[in-house]
Amino acid sequence: MSGSSILRGKVVIAQGGGPTVVINQSLVGAVLELRKFPGVTRVWGALHGVQGIIKEKFLDLSEAENTNLEKVAQTPSAALGSTRDRPDIKYCQSILNVFQKHNVRYFFYIGGNDSSETVRIIKEYADQQGYAMRAVHIPKTVDNDLPVTDHCPGYPSAAAFVTYAFAGLNADNIALPGVHIAVVMGRHTGWLTAAAALARKHNDDGPHLIYLPERRFSIEKYLSDVDNVYRQHGRCVVAVSEGVWTSCDSEGKEIPVSVDLMRVSGCEPDTDAHGNIHLAGGKLAEQLAKIVKHKFGVKRVNGDTFGYIQRSFPGLVSSIDTREAREVGEKAVQYACGENMNGSVVIKRIGDYSVQYDLVDIREIASKTRYMPDRFINADGNNVTEEFRKYLYPLLGINIPNIERLSAPELPIA
Amino acid sequence: MSGSSILRGKVVIAQGGGPTVVINQSLVGAVLELRKFPGVTRVWGALHGVQGIIKEKFLDLSEAENTNLEKVAQTPSAALGSTRDRPDIKYCQSILNVFQKHNVRYFFYIGGNDSSETVRIIKEYADQQGYAMRAVHIPKTVDNDLPVTDHCPGYPSAAAFVTYAFAGLNADNIALPGVHIAVVMGRHTGWLTAAAALARKHNDDGPHLIYLPERRFSIEKYLSDVDNVYRQHGRCVVAVSEGVWTSCDSEGKEIPVSVDLMRVSGCEPDTDAHGNIHLAGGKLAEQLAKIVKHKFGVKRVNGDTFGYIQRSFPGLVSSIDTREAREVGEKAVQYACGENMNGSVVIKRIGDYSVQYDLVDIREIASKTRYMPDRFINADGNNVTEEFRKYLYPLLGINIPNIERLSAPELPIA
Repeated sequence: MSGSSILRGKVVIAQGGGPTVVINQSLVGAVLELRKFPGVTRVWGALHGVQGIIKEKFLDLSEAENTNLEKVAQTPSAALGSTRDRPDIKYCQSILNVFQKHNVRYFFYIGGNDSSETVRIIKEYADQQGYAMRAVHIPKTVDNDLPVTDHCPGYPSAAAFVTYAFAGLNADNIALPGVHIAVVMGRHTGWLTAAAALARKHNDDGPHLIYLPERRFSIEKYLSDVDNVYRQHGRCVVAVSEGVWTSCDSEGKEIPVSVDLMRVSGCEPDTDAHGNIHLAGGKLAEQLAKIVKHKFGVKRVNGDTFGYIQRSFPGLVSSIDTREAREVGEKAVQYACGENMNGSVVIKRIGDYSVQYDLVDIREIASKTRYMPDRFINADGNNVTEEFRKYLYPLLGINIPNIERLSAPELPIA
Repeated sequence: MSGSSILRGKVVIAQGGGPTVVINQSLVGAVLELRKFPGVTRVWGALHGVQGIIKEKFLDLSEAENTNLEKVAQTPSAALGSTRDRPDIKYCQSILNVFQKHNVRYFFYIGGNDSSETVRIIKEYADQQGYAMRAVHIPKTVDNDLPVTDHCPGYPSAAAFVTYAFAGLNADNIALPGVHIAVVMGRHTGWLTAAAALARKHNDDGPHLIYLPERRFSIEKYLSDVDNVYRQHGRCVVAVSEGVWTSCDSEGKEIPVSVDLMRVSGCEPDTDAHGNIHLAGGKLAEQLAKIVKHKFGVKRVNGDTFGYIQRSFPGLVSSIDTREAREVGEKAVQYACGENMNGSVVIKRIGDYSVQYDLVDIREIASKTRYMPDRFINADGNNVTEEFRKYLYPLLGINIPNIERLSAPELPIA
């Protein structure tokens, strides 16, 4: 990870992937920290991630004023713009050409799995070419699915949104009983959906059932679970990851649950140009609601899909997340410019609750996915464990909504 | 509205219709205020609205402790439970029988259009029967569609949620440009959808287009509007009321836009048992996204539906709404128990911004719908006016999220 001597040259910093509410804390943390290092001649912000690098679209962040930066830090979504581009070798060669042309010696990329892979390819290619540079990946993803790190900046705030949303939906469901299904982001892992569990306060609070992509989803089991909860409580709140799947195709690829659901309900699934099932737009929630209504004849059955607001809602930000997102940006700069190192910044949890930061080899992170461990999922595969609640609780950095029930004697009239 | 002499007897209070985050402020405001009136022998809370009355399911709120009540006041969704029952004459006769049996002389119903109609029927039936009682409707609805009143408790907080959600979605859409359509609650009126406009700060901020049920929706116009915005800004954020409609059937009944959209996209609409088109579950957003993608070939087109969280999200509550919801509950009691009056409590706006409360004849409110006035909607029918923004702004009772853009010179390289 460590290089030989402190380099002198420009910095390029960029943001990639889906926005979070704290991603600009990392940007601002890095930009302000960079001002402390004399080897840094100029700080350029690439517009729309790697796209901005190959198109040579940069903002000169050396000129950005602190008052502006501090307000940007509190603004959700990537202030430099983002991209969904996943550079291949050729794309990374173009990036390196731009770096060489402008004497860029430091590259910081704030992002998730794809962005870490980009950092890996560029750094390896630079090494092959004998171009001395430092490259550090600054972690960010509401999916919380980067390996090694205890958790990913962006996740705690999105988790707080999900917790609050389910506290509200559960209170709504008590007032107007029925079955309510809400679909949460998470195509491959259940971290964000699992946050729904923290909305529970009383024994009969929802979400009563939580389905995660870490477990195979069975429609029969789902129906019998909902039936059991409904018989017990007269209502049921369900949290479902958008990425739940029922079976694998002949190549071992997971088939999203919507395909089976559509088969059951007699609809044709929508597919994109690559034949992938289109899960967005409320289809999964709708189908899961429809099948409950059809099977049990429950009158009130509703399906919601949280959509994009869960990752960019400016009304609820974890104070822990805010500070840590800032600090991973600062630490990345210290590692690269102060200690001449490359890699990916990770968060280590100390006790209950503090953190330390570390830098790990980018190959330990790049393109890898961390699933929820078994100890966080119940034996039945339809809920999370108390251990998961203890894992998430200190990250929320905000009071869990205090849902209070009326406490007054019921009259013995009827 | 005014009765002859101060009555002595029990109180029944209940909550009806869709929950809000401040509906329990009205309940607690009324319950605590009732303790000041010696004519009130007992305060009963009916469980699940009018259902609880005919089933004689009551909590004895005279026994509720203040600490519990104050925490309940801050909890979203009806703490007594709610109902969708719309009592007819016969149902109201059963209610009056229960009132007579238990010497209930005061009835307070916290709710929207349907609840006000229930209060009207019960009171008129009691008058016919010569049963002396006071009945007051306490306003509540996120739809903001009750007549006479300046606005309805519950609306400001839901409006704040919508404003924040669109501020986040707009920032997301700047980072990852494309077309984003979000569907907001409002089957008959556009008040809540219109709140999206307050998310705008910069000239090119979204939502760029706002469609309300107060104007006939044209698919051709929608497509040309989106095309214009996309050509100008390279992106487009659209806010749409769930209740937008394209045409009327032979009986003059509005046909939801989804029917026409489905005709265009070749899908069959879902209908419920009464043949009504089922708008929930993301169908409208999905269809509106699909048609843009199909027509213009824009790569990133997404449709979200806010769903139930917009009315029950405990993370964002308007401070104005909190106080006013409390006060309409208190005022209802003062009118009924102190001044021996019947009716519906309304809010009058004084200057910019204070309020006064008044009591109006229930017949001015019951079963009536207040649409957005013409002065709040632009001539093109695809946005709101500055006058609407001035109307809503003081109600939010919370800072509008400060979406800051990076201010740094763009390098003249490429």
